Amino acid sequence: MAEIKQVIIIRSDISMGKGKLAAQAAHASLMSYLEAEKKDKEIAKQWIDEGEKKIVLKADSEDALKKLFEAFRFKKIPCSLVSDAGLTQLQPGTVTALGIGPWNGEEIDRFTSTFKLL
Amino acid sequence: MAEIKQVIIIRSDISMGKGKLAAQAAHASLMSYLEAEKKDKEIAKQWIDEGEKKIVLKADSEDALKKLFEAFRFKKIPCSLVSDAGLTQLQPGTVTALGIGPWNGEEIDRFTSTFKLL
Repeated sequence: MAEIKQVIIIRSDISMGKGKLAAQAAHASLMSYLEAEKKDKEIAKQWIDEGEKKIVLKADSEDALKKLFEAFRFKKIPCSLVSDAGLTQLQPGTVTALGIGPWNGEEIDRFTSTFKLL
Repeated sequence: MAEIKQVIIIRSDISMGKGKLAAQAAHASLMSYLEAEKKDKEIAKQWIDEGEKKIVLKADSEDALKKLFEAFRFKKIPCSLVSDAGLTQLQPGTVTALGIGPWNGEEIDRFTSTFKLL
């Protein structure tokens, strides 16, 4: 059976404190999970049952994250682009993170293999 | 109406890289969300609809996190204690994070008000 995983990609070109980083990652993870659950309950359940494998990568620009988001949407792979409300460290609307899946890991990797671990 | 929020508490006394930190926070957030959804679908939905307010705090020991976890469980407030599989940076089973809620913010604060922002 194909490996199911979630990939979280965080922007590394903007400065976020640890708390901000943790919150953005959690936001991306949960929103993308809810998308996946809407699209395919079985995949979402399998991923939870298997321990929720998550991989955290980094992207070096807002543009890179947005392009990936569009690519995954085009492929109908569940994903969620996170922007910050900007109350504290960042400008309102700053894109900070992208959550992808849980979904077939190989299908995700096709687009993310050039991104490095955060 | 009471403010609904989720609190994520991360251990600050162990060394975690950014990717590990992000993954543990996401894990705590999602597991605790699923607990909350099981217990009270309305609260979970309200929290999502209102933009998923998340607060990230820090704890200085495993013991502090475990005691908090027991306190919230005793109060029947949805929560999830996360331990790491320990494949890379940490010993297997190391407790890394605690997710609480989404739940009534005031009820959470009663136990967490002495913890500082991460």
